[in-house]
This record gives sequence, C-alpha cells and structure tokens, in this order.
Amino acid sequence: MPQKTAYLDNSATTQVCPEAAQKAAEGMTACYGNPSSLHAMGMRAEAMMEQARAGVAGALGCRAAEIIFTSGGTESNNLALFGAIGALGRRGRRIVTTQIEHPSVLEAMGELERRGFEVVRLRPQSDGKVPEQLIYDAVNQGTILISMMAVNNETGAVQPVAAMKKAAVAAGAPALIHCDAVQAFCRLPMEPARLGIDLVSVSAHKIHGPKGTGALYMRSGARITPLLFGGGQEKGLRPGTHAVELIAAFGAAASVAAEGRAGFMREIAALRGYCLDRLVEIGGVTVNSPADAAPHILSISCEGIPSEVMLNHLSANGVYVSAGSACSRGARSHVLAAMALPEARAASALRISFSRFNTKEDVDLLCAQLEAGLATIKRAGKRH
Amino acid sequence: MPQKTAYLDNSATTQVCPEAAQKAAEGMTACYGNPSSLHAMGMRAEAMMEQARAGVAGALGCRAAEIIFTSGGTESNNLALFGAIGALGRRGRRIVTTQIEHPSVLEAMGELERRGFEVVRLRPQSDGKVPEQLIYDAVNQGTILISMMAVNNETGAVQPVAAMKKAAVAAGAPALIHCDAVQAFCRLPMEPARLGIDLVSVSAHKIHGPKGTGALYMRSGARITPLLFGGGQEKGLRPGTHAVELIAAFGAAASVAAEGRAGFMREIAALRGYCLDRLVEIGGVTVNSPADAAPHILSISCEGIPSEVMLNHLSANGVYVSAGSACSRGARSHVLAAMALPEARAASALRISFSRFNTKEDVDLLCAQLEAGLATIKRAGKRH
Repeated sequence: MPQKTAYLDNSATTQVCPEAAQKAAEGMTACYGNPSSLHAMGMRAEAMMEQARAGVAGALGCRAAEIIFTSGGTESNNLALFGAIGALGRRGRRIVTTQIEHPSVLEAMGELERRGFEVVRLRPQSDGKVPEQLIYDAVNQGTILISMMAVNNETGAVQPVAAMKKAAVAAGAPALIHCDAVQAFCRLPMEPARLGIDLVSVSAHKIHGPKGTGALYMRSGARITPLLFGGGQEKGLRPGTHAVELIAAFGAAASVAAEGRAGFMREIAALRGYCLDRLVEIGGVTVNSPADAAPHILSISCEGIPSEVMLNHLSANGVYVSAGSACSRGARSHVLAAMALPEARAASALRISFSRFNTKEDVDLLCAQLEAGLATIKRAGKRH
Repeated sequence: MPQKTAYLDNSATTQVCPEAAQKAAEGMTACYGNPSSLHAMGMRAEAMMEQARAGVAGALGCRAAEIIFTSGGTESNNLALFGAIGALGRRGRRIVTTQIEHPSVLEAMGELERRGFEVVRLRPQSDGKVPEQLIYDAVNQGTILISMMAVNNETGAVQPVAAMKKAAVAAGAPALIHCDAVQAFCRLPMEPARLGIDLVSVSAHKIHGPKGTGALYMRSGARITPLLFGGGQEKGLRPGTHAVELIAAFGAAASVAAEGRAGFMREIAALRGYCLDRLVEIGGVTVNSPADAAPHILSISCEGIPSEVMLNHLSANGVYVSAGSACSRGARSHVLAAMALPEARAASALRISFSRFNTKEDVDLLCAQLEAGLATIKRAGKRH
C-alpha cells in the first residue's frame, strides 16, 4: 500500500465514523439481545433500536413510526417499488421514472415491465438533470407509481423531486411517490412531508454508518405490501431479527451527520471548489457534473485516457475514486449515456466523491496523481 | 440489572464472539471499501469477503461458490422458497412442508397458498419429530418444493431432513429441496450434498456472529429466481452493497464454531445433562423436548405458572430464557400446539437455549431462580 492515501470514493461507501463503530461494538458484545425477546436483555436491545429509529427519523425530518429498517438501499428501493405496485397494481398500469436511476430501481423497473406494467423512463438533459416539465407530461390518470432519485450517484445532479407529487395531483393520479435519497440523505434537506413524497429510501453506509442496513420512510397512512414474510417485525413490512448493532450504529451516524450537516456541507463545497481550481490548473480535465450539483459528487473526464486506466494508475498510487459508480463495475455508464455525453468523455469519466473526513491533502494527492497520470499515460500512448 | 446474570436464550440470538467482533471492527474502520469498487480498497474488501465465504462454506461442508450472502435467516428462507417457486412454478402445484417451521417459512408458505399453490403441512408426533413416512406419503409427482427445518427452534427436535430428497426421487418429483438449518448450523453435521439438499438457510447471529447477515447455500447447478433486483452482486441473486464487515464477522464466527464444534457440543450436552439433573431435584418441571433433541435447546414446562409470569420473574433476577421463540413475542406456540401438548403444559412452556459460553454457574442461577419462582409464584397464587 502507498504511504499516503486519499479515499475519494465516498459515494460508493464510507468509513464508519467513531460514534457509529462504538455503537456497533456495544450492540455486538454488551447489548446483544434480540429486540423481539420479552426479557430485560431484549428490552434493552429494543430501547437501543428505538433510539436509533428516532435518530434516523430526526435526520430525515419525519416521525420515528414512519421509519422501516431494511438491509440497505437496494432492499429499500425494491420494497418501495414492488410494495407500491402490490398495493396499487389494480388501479392503473403506468409507472414513471427516469433513465438515470440506480440499478436497484432500474432493474426492479425492468421486472415490473416484464410483469406487464408500462414503465416511462424520463431522460435527463446534457447537464444530468431531468426537466420538471417531462414529469408533468408523463404522469397520467393511470399512473400508480412515480420514482425519482434526489441526487444522481454518478454526477451529483439534483433532481426536481418535489414535482412528482405536484404532477400526480395535476393528473389526478393515484400514484405513490418514491424517492431514492441514498445520495441525498444527510446532505440535502429531504423532509418527505414538505416534498410530498410517500416513500424515501436511505442507506447507512453512505453516511458513515455500517453496510448492511438502511431504511424506508413510509408516510403515515400510506400502504405497501411486503417483500419478505416472517416474524412480523417492522409492522410485518420487514420481518427478520433486527440487526440491532447495525441499526444502533446507523442511528448514531445519522444523528452526527444531520446535526453537523450545514457545516459539513460547507466544508465539502469548499473542498470541491478547491479541487475544481486545481483541476483547471492541471488542464486536460473536463467537468461532467452540473455547476449546481450536490457538492459531494464530482464527475470529470480526462479525455483520451480510458476510465479504468486512470483509475488503476490512481489506485496504484493510493488515490481511490470510481469509474462511474461502484455498482456498474466498469460497465459503460447508463447515466452518462442518457446525458448524451460525447463517447470520448463518457469513456474517460471518473467520479470523485467527498466526505467530511476528506482534506485538502487528499485533493492535493488526487491532483498530483491525475497530473502524473495525464503525463505518463499520454506519453506511454505516444510511444506505441 | 441484577449482579449475576445468565443468558440462556441463545436460540433467539447470541453474543458476538471476540473473533467476529474484531473482524467487524476491522471492516468498519480499516478495510471499509465496497467490494464492487475496482480500486485497491475495493479489492481488499473483496478479499476479506471471499475469505469469509470460504469460512462459511467450510463450516457447512460445501464449496465457496455455493454460498449466497443474505441479510439473515428470514431472507434466506424467503429467497429459497419464492426463488424455487419462481424457477419451478410451472412444473407442478404441490409444496410439502411441516407445521413446525419458523414463521419465515410458515408465512411465506401462506403467501404461496394465496398465490394458488397447494401447501401440505406435515404434523409432528407428540415428541416434536415429523415421522419420515409422512414425507413419503405427501410427496407426489407434481411436488415442486419440499421444505423442512433441521432442528426445531422451540424444542430442539431433530427432523429427518435426508428423507426429503429420497421422497422426491421415489415419487419422481421435480422438487427443489430446502432446509432451514438456522438452529442446526455449526451444531449438527449439515453437509448439503450428503443430505441431498439443494437449498440451505443459515444465519450468523445464532452462531456468535452479528445480526443482519446470513447465507443461502445453493447447490451448484440448481436454479432459483431472485427476490431483489439491482447491482448484480451474488450472481444477481442478492444484489445490494455487500455488508463486508458483517460477512467478515460471519466467516470468522463460522470458522471458530465449526472447528470447535465437536468439543463445544460435548460441553453443551454435558451442561444440558447437568441442567436436567438439577430440574429433577427441583420438581414441578416437565421436559417437552425429546430425549434425542439437539442438546442446545431444551423446552420445559413449569405447570401452573404461565410462561410470561415465570419469564418475567427470571428476567427480574438476571436469568434470560424465552417463552417459545423470540419471534412469536408471547403468542401461543404453533409448535407445541402441533405436538398436541396438553394446554396446561403449552401455556407454561419455557425455552432454555445454551451456547458454548454458558457455564454451570448459569445453570445454577437458572435453577435457583426457577425454584424460587415455583415457590413464590405458587404461594402468590394460593393467596388469591
């Protein structure tokens, strides 16, 4: 491993913060009861879990009773989509979503299409943002589900999620409104009631909580069907022994992230600004993210150098970024394709994603290695 | 909290062992990459995960490629059952299972029944064991799924799981064979290939691993459909960012538990024997578990004292056991009902479940408090 490293892939996953790691350890070795157990050990575990539920609810700006714990963002998205269709599938056939959703929404939509539903996938502009008007145009009276992410995971482009409910009301649609807020949670204000959203997916491991847990916000009064059947936990919507240690850690991570949000985001925005200034100095780098993107995600292209080649060069020198998203594992990005980015830029795209633990030194290391890569890889190219 | 405590509810959940807690901590704060990331941090996380997969596979006696990581036993059971029906649903209508399965199997079976499948639920004898012959009688040519637990979670009764495959072969059924081995894993030898089982569910938190992870063994060559859609992890059968820290901890827990299994089980059997001797001395206690039950689970009844009353008395005095299973949360046990246990015994049943961390002192505390409870609660009863 190189001596100095810079982890700048925080939209793939984050380091667990000390507060969360501490709670997880406590849940594993001290407060290890099953919250469904009726004895004192069970009750202590239940109290620990309910404290975490309040923490997550507080971070999202909703009531604790509206939080359903799941195993993470993918399950939250699947539960929201299949659950909404389970509840409303007889009231219409149309589902409206976008071309730039996370695979856990896109693939679930593909499955719903195979089951006979009509899925309308809205296309973003070249800046990565889906125009509000497209939503109004697509939603009709037979629309039973509208699903749009709040912040795109590859570009940081902020989507007009408040338009979903307005479009449903305008069309007289019975639709449930879902938002994949995995990249927005604890970064942008996401109060579901204010945005008219019924179902919101969030994940712990993107906000310095552990992998393996997440939540689905479900508006009080909304109804969906479960994906899993069993012991009745989470009002029967998500049975299975509660992962108390993870949930407790999630609650701690959410509380810390939400309380410090404004300050953390100011720091991250400043770091992004510093990074952009440095990239201009280097030259040979194009920015794919819109100017008003969420500040923690920055998509760039080093034209002429395939993403994987630069990614490997950076990784060998201790700098960790991604080519598109972690989930695509090197496959061509569907997001950049939907934005109709020129082929050369799409093929050379890199995603830099910041967390509150990143420093100017991380950006300096990134830029130094990008510069070295641009020089040496191009030189290598010329030799052939 | 009382000064001395005895946690004897290990079939509800267990304390995470030091080896597993250590791995979880390492995954959260040091090796925290996303295994789907292509850089060095991702590759280190992937290596950590694959080491764990080998550990779990070794504990089960199968190949690493046959292990699918899930969020736990409930998800493994649901994935196995709905996945098998997704694959074979057009080849027949009959499903054979038992009346004494875990709620995550029972409730999934109820859902399959609502979807039009014919579910045959075999009944145990009064000792809690399902007679082998019933399986042969129930399986016909149109049977597409047979599902039976290896060890019952309330009584410890060991079920004749090897008969499932034999019955399928005898009937010429295309059935996939599923076994919920959550209570048997790392306690009884469970080699799927030897038992003719296609799908085996296991959970980490019953073997001193963390809550929130588990696995489904799927025989190489078997085919099921997924429950969740997304990023393609686990061969597309279980997408979503891998919970690396949990999986690593699971692997460590499974390796320790499997390597020491014979010795641990001898100790637990000795502890059970000691406990039974002490209970005879006390009097007023009936044993519901069969004599040849798996040694870590012991169901007893203190006739005349409702389960909840004794459970609360024990809990107040630092002894943690359950009334039936944790998942039923005080509801009348479907297992004891299926065994046709007399009402008075079912209503006063307690489950004692041992782990390798229990000692004679734990049993002494349990017995002292049972004795005190039998005396004082009966006295209280007489006063009214």
